[in-house]
Order: sequence, then C-alpha cells, then structure tokens
Amino acid sequence: MRLYLASTSPARLATLRSAGIEPVTYSPDVDEDAVVAAAGELSAHDMVALLARTKAEAVRDIHGNDIDGLILGGDSAFVIDGVIHGKPHEPAVAKERWLRQTGRSGVLYSGHWLIDNRGGRDAGGVGIVTHAAVHFADVTETEIEAYIATGEPLKVAGAFTIDSLGGAFIDRIVGDPHTVVGLSLPALRNLVRSFNIEWTDLWNR
Amino acid sequence: MRLYLASTSPARLATLRSAGIEPVTYSPDVDEDAVVAAAGELSAHDMVALLARTKAEAVRDIHGNDIDGLILGGDSAFVIDGVIHGKPHEPAVAKERWLRQTGRSGVLYSGHWLIDNRGGRDAGGVGIVTHAAVHFADVTETEIEAYIATGEPLKVAGAFTIDSLGGAFIDRIVGDPHTVVGLSLPALRNLVRSFNIEWTDLWNR
Repeated sequence: MRLYLASTSPARLATLRSAGIEPVTYSPDVDEDAVVAAAGELSAHDMVALLARTKAEAVRDIHGNDIDGLILGGDSAFVIDGVIHGKPHEPAVAKERWLRQTGRSGVLYSGHWLIDNRGGRDAGGVGIVTHAAVHFADVTETEIEAYIATGEPLKVAGAFTIDSLGGAFIDRIVGDPHTVVGLSLPALRNLVRSFNIEWTDLWNR
Repeated sequence: MRLYLASTSPARLATLRSAGIEPVTYSPDVDEDAVVAAAGELSAHDMVALLARTKAEAVRDIHGNDIDGLILGGDSAFVIDGVIHGKPHEPAVAKERWLRQTGRSGVLYSGHWLIDNRGGRDAGGVGIVTHAAVHFADVTETEIEAYIATGEPLKVAGAFTIDSLGGAFIDRIVGDPHTVVGLSLPALRNLVRSFNIEWTDLWNR
C-alpha cells in the first residue's frame, strides 16, 4: 500500500520517514490565501481542515489517474491569545512573537485529509483535526536572538520547532508530539484503518 | 563550550544533534545492575537519578583531566502498574508487555546529571529527573507482531519508541516529548544555565 503526500513540508516528510513510511510527494497547486479568503471567517480548526482537504483534492484532480494508493493532505496553524499565527518570515516578526510567547502557552492544530484512491479512482475521503498544547520555557532575549539568527523559526507556524533547535525552549506539551510537528501519526493510523487497511502495510522503509 | 555525553544511547545522541549540539561521547564503565542492587529498594525516580549521576562520575573519574567542558549522564525507566520496565530484549517479553499496555498509560522517567568540568577539574554537579505520561493507542495484535518483528522495541525501556515506528502507537503524552526519548532538552538547558553558561553557547553544529 502506497502513501502519496500532498505537501512539500520537510517536517511532514521526516515524520512519515521516521515512522517507516516513504511517501511519494506532490506539491499541491493551491492558493492557500485565496481558499481561506473565499471561506469567510474560519476558526484555526476549520481552517486547517479545509486546507488539508483542498491540498489532497488538488493532487487527486491532477494526478489521481496515476495514483494507486492513499493521498494525504495536511495543514497546521498555531493559536495564542485567540490569534492564528502563521510563519513569521521576517526576523523582526519572529522576535516580537517570541518576546510575547516566552513563558506562556498556545495550541497547535494539525489538519489531515486522506483519500482512498486505490486503482486510480477516488472512493472517498476522511479527515481529522488534532491539537496539542505547547508550553514555552522562559527563554531569554539572548536565546531568542541566537535562535532567530539560525533562520529556523522563520519558516514555521508559530515561529518555533520542537524537533530541532527549538526543542530546548518548550517545557512540555499535552497531546501527540507529532501534531506539533504537523502530522499526527496516531491520527493518520486511525484514518488508514477506517479504509480497512492495516497501518503496518504502509511500512516500506 | 563543549558537552561530553556519558551515554552510548543512540536516541540521546540523536536528540542532542537535533538540538544543535554535537557532543563527545564516552561509554561509561558502570555495572548498572550492581549499582542498583547496592542501593537497595529504589523508586524509578531515584533509580534513574542514581544511574545518571553514576555514569557521569564514571566518565569524570577516568577522563576528567582531559575534559574541558560539561559532562552529562542520563538514564531512563518506564513505569506501568507501579512496576519498572526496562528493555524487553526478547520478542516474547515485548509481546507480553504490549498486550498488557495497549490502550493504557504509563510514565517515563529520565534522569540527568551534569558536571561542570571546565579546565579538567570537577567544580560540582547538578541533577534533575523529569517525567512524562505516555498514553498508548489501541494497538492490534497484528500491529504488535509487525512492530516486534522489526526489532526496534526490544532495545528500549518499556518496549516502545516515540521517535520512530512506535510513534503511531502513542496517542498522546503529557510532558516534554524529549523526556520520552531519554533526554529532556529544557531540563538540560536549566542545568547548563545553573552554571552561568548560555545554552546557545553549546550549539556547535
């Protein structure tokens, strides 16, 4: 059984590989801002659910005839103080966010949509959104500046990573750690099993 | 500032590397069973604290004169139903444990001991024990057998890993995910800072 990943996120790919799955990856041709704008006001939960599904379906629409397996779309967002925080991109934005979030906590939402596309035919899709609470350590301004200087926090939702340099700056989480990275493995396992497919049949590494 | 790791655990080494630290590793010459037997009855908390310290001090005793930096010892244990579970080693033991722990939860304890050995001289040590609750998914016997057949769960305390194949079989944790792997990065950061050393000064990758 083959998994097709409708995402270019290196963190999602690394998570699947660590779990024994080498997927075929596709870059979904989705204008995320336009999709969200067209949907009107959305919660973080509904936004990641919509984008995960849109990405999976975009890959199905273009490559579906050639795909004999499962198509997975994913999307993540970080919420603190009721505000959705995406990628900061700019060092100044990352610093301003870290000065506010040090010593505090937020919630990471990850959306998943899985299409059963065995035989090159869409036989239905299922989705789930997971979330995990993230508690930041008391990080000093010196540490924040050194962390931002590495460039790592600029390209990720919430301006933090838990699986690399940022791991030392997160005291604890409540939830599935892989949700924080962007793809919940136990949630994906449940979606796979809902199609009567054994999880371990995806292992190909 | 250089970190010297008094542990041969591949998971501890990988955790440090992911966090930007390439340590010098030493294999501590410690008879763990003898140390624990000599100490009398110990809780999991006290056992991992004792073994982490013993490992760090064993490396200091032999290599201390040549070490200009910090020496870190670590040890972990998994507790379920009030019983400490080490590495299962045998497939039959691993299967019996998984049949019991599927759908349930336990606690992973990780002990840390850090010696300030700058200039080749022991200027004191500090330690901390962290713990994280681990909630297992409802894993089927087919999955348990496939997982054990990979050999992965045989060499780890509690017969599970969260950072590789086992990640899909753990629904959630409460605590620092790195504690589950065997080395809490935020706890190590606190120990380093207690010696008035900047955490980011350890980054050397």
